[in-house]
Amino acid sequence: PGSRDARPAVTPVAAVLPAGGSGERLGGATPKQFCAVQGRPLVSYTVRAMERISWIADIIVVVSPENIEIMKSIIERYGHKRVTIVKGGITRHRSIFNGLKVFAENKFSNHLLQKPEVVIIHDAVRPFVEEDILSKVVMAAKEHGAAGAIRPLVSTVIASAADGCLDHSLERARYRASEMPQAFLFDIIYEAYRQCTDYDLDYGTECLHLALKYCKTNAKLVEGTADLWKVTYKRDLYAAESIIKDNLSQQVCVITDVKEAVAQVGFLLHECLKSQIKVEAISISLSKNDSYLQKIFSGQCYNFVCVKGKKYAIQETQQLVDMLEKSNIPLLYPVVLILVHLDISENISFSIGMEELTRIKNFAREVKKKNIFVYGLLIQYK
Amino acid sequence: PGSRDARPAVTPVAAVLPAGGSGERLGGATPKQFCAVQGRPLVSYTVRAMERISWIADIIVVVSPENIEIMKSIIERYGHKRVTIVKGGITRHRSIFNGLKVFAENKFSNHLLQKPEVVIIHDAVRPFVEEDILSKVVMAAKEHGAAGAIRPLVSTVIASAADGCLDHSLERARYRASEMPQAFLFDIIYEAYRQCTDYDLDYGTECLHLALKYCKTNAKLVEGTADLWKVTYKRDLYAAESIIKDNLSQQVCVITDVKEAVAQVGFLLHECLKSQIKVEAISISLSKNDSYLQKIFSGQCYNFVCVKGKKYAIQETQQLVDMLEKSNIPLLYPVVLILVHLDISENISFSIGMEELTRIKNFAREVKKKNIFVYGLLIQYK
Repeated sequence: PGSRDARPAVTPVAAVLPAGGSGERLGGATPKQFCAVQGRPLVSYTVRAMERISWIADIIVVVSPENIEIMKSIIERYGHKRVTIVKGGITRHRSIFNGLKVFAENKFSNHLLQKPEVVIIHDAVRPFVEEDILSKVVMAAKEHGAAGAIRPLVSTVIASAADGCLDHSLERARYRASEMPQAFLFDIIYEAYRQCTDYDLDYGTECLHLALKYCKTNAKLVEGTADLWKVTYKRDLYAAESIIKDNLSQQVCVITDVKEAVAQVGFLLHECLKSQIKVEAISISLSKNDSYLQKIFSGQCYNFVCVKGKKYAIQETQQLVDMLEKSNIPLLYPVVLILVHLDISENISFSIGMEELTRIKNFAREVKKKNIFVYGLLIQYK
Repeated sequence: PGSRDARPAVTPVAAVLPAGGSGERLGGATPKQFCAVQGRPLVSYTVRAMERISWIADIIVVVSPENIEIMKSIIERYGHKRVTIVKGGITRHRSIFNGLKVFAENKFSNHLLQKPEVVIIHDAVRPFVEEDILSKVVMAAKEHGAAGAIRPLVSTVIASAADGCLDHSLERARYRASEMPQAFLFDIIYEAYRQCTDYDLDYGTECLHLALKYCKTNAKLVEGTADLWKVTYKRDLYAAESIIKDNLSQQVCVITDVKEAVAQVGFLLHECLKSQIKVEAISISLSKNDSYLQKIFSGQCYNFVCVKGKKYAIQETQQLVDMLEKSNIPLLYPVVLILVHLDISENISFSIGMEELTRIKNFAREVKKKNIFVYGLLIQYK
């Protein structure tokens, strides 16, 4: 996640996600954006990646007419917010144009959405987009009118002659692959789409090209990370699945309450773990329904370490379990909850009341049925 | 596998596999060609893909000096044949040149290998190469002097200006990604390497470019399949692993002995299954140590259906199990062995001798310890 400073100030920003592709290159019947990855459609991961960024006001998902109902059910099932579904056109450019019209023409939506200053365009089949690159392209678009993520070429690019033989090969270092996300001043990209020809709309695919051709805007190119790649072939679905699985097991949320000594332990744990695993450390009281915790849940974190000062605060743990259940995320994987209790009392004795112990065991047994595993750890020190 | 007709006649063919890359794009310490995929180094899959093609006489694997011992141990462990290890240079082109020198200069090998008419150049990190594309590039190289596999571009290619902004984007339809395998008349590519500059050797990567620049040979471009892609990033290793897992479970070898009625059943089974699963059907007697069966094993086939005329020929089944064990392949997955016995006698009765049945059960129990699962099926008909 990007730092707070990466937030592009108060610029109104929206995102358009073209999701109208037919997925013919995958060799399957289901378009790739709707293929299940760990039981969840790919497009839902991409929407989530956008939705967890607070400064993106509206998310427009453009789908072909036959998939509108599917998309509606995905939004409902995974509890996506700030999403508007728009009917796509027969080509990628026509779909993106339809998405932009929602901010400018009433007939494309029940109500006109607030026109953003900057619009992000991002493929629904690139689920691993991070806040960092999004804020970079948005800020570059504010300055240059247009911006897009690029990557080094993996293969040499060649031009073939009419006889199917090599004409020439391009010097690899001089060229880049144009990837997503891209961002534009809304007025520039909307004007480019309004002016461009039917030929552009039917055969073109590159938004940066339209901004250059019709608005004389040379997009700023921003080096992106390898995980921006587009899920194109079946092997890319395999890769996406493995990356998601990896992320699930490599994230842990350390929750501490506000007492100083306890927060200190949480911080040390964070420091120890951070080279091994992605750690979010938060200082909150579990008794409050914290919105930050909600965000952690929707990030599909499945591991929690709660560092508490109080002995065996089952009530608070129950609160966390309740919040997990209410959080709308499908619990595909076992949730691991490790309760660390710090006993800083002078009285070093391992005597725990049998009654207390039985309550804890019963609690753990109960939540295990919900696929939540609770473990307890008592640390006593002087 | 390609048809028999695809075999490029009696042309002497060799293959050079550059495997000297450092794998820096993977973000790990192990170069990607040595990364384990299902417990086996990636390069071993690529060598196997070459080695199972009978018309490739020599396979040259070029590795950096520090990896020569690792490569030797891989060849030994997986029983690779026809492989010569050559010390690589500091760049890709220098490594390939070293590989070619084995056929022309004695000092690069203990003995000079027979100079091939056509040489295939293929990356060690593209493990899914099939006979079909190999024979296509070899035949095109015989005719045109050079040939290479190409793929459509996945992303638009752009050129950036000095200020880091978009200069222009290339029309995607006019260009292709140059992939591997490539093939050359040996004399052409060797001459191109002999004539090219140090700058070419240090900064270039594209063999087709050298053949064009120094030998005026316009390579024939051959459309390849999606699975020719290069394992470049960590996600590609994930994808490769999933593809290999898929292949393991989607392959079955139907073995029949030579009697006509039995072979017929094997053929019908082949026809029924082939839309669901990759089927190899062979007509051999299991009592012979058939080299064709050895090839099936090294293709990591884990499912066998043996269609037999004789009742419960445990001895022959034992032979198959012995061959599997001797075949040097690590049995990572359970081997499933289904014995189908056809009883064409007039006497329709389900009476099976208890003694016979006990022997079979004991046999199945014994081999189960070796991770081999034996199932029997008796089909009686008039």
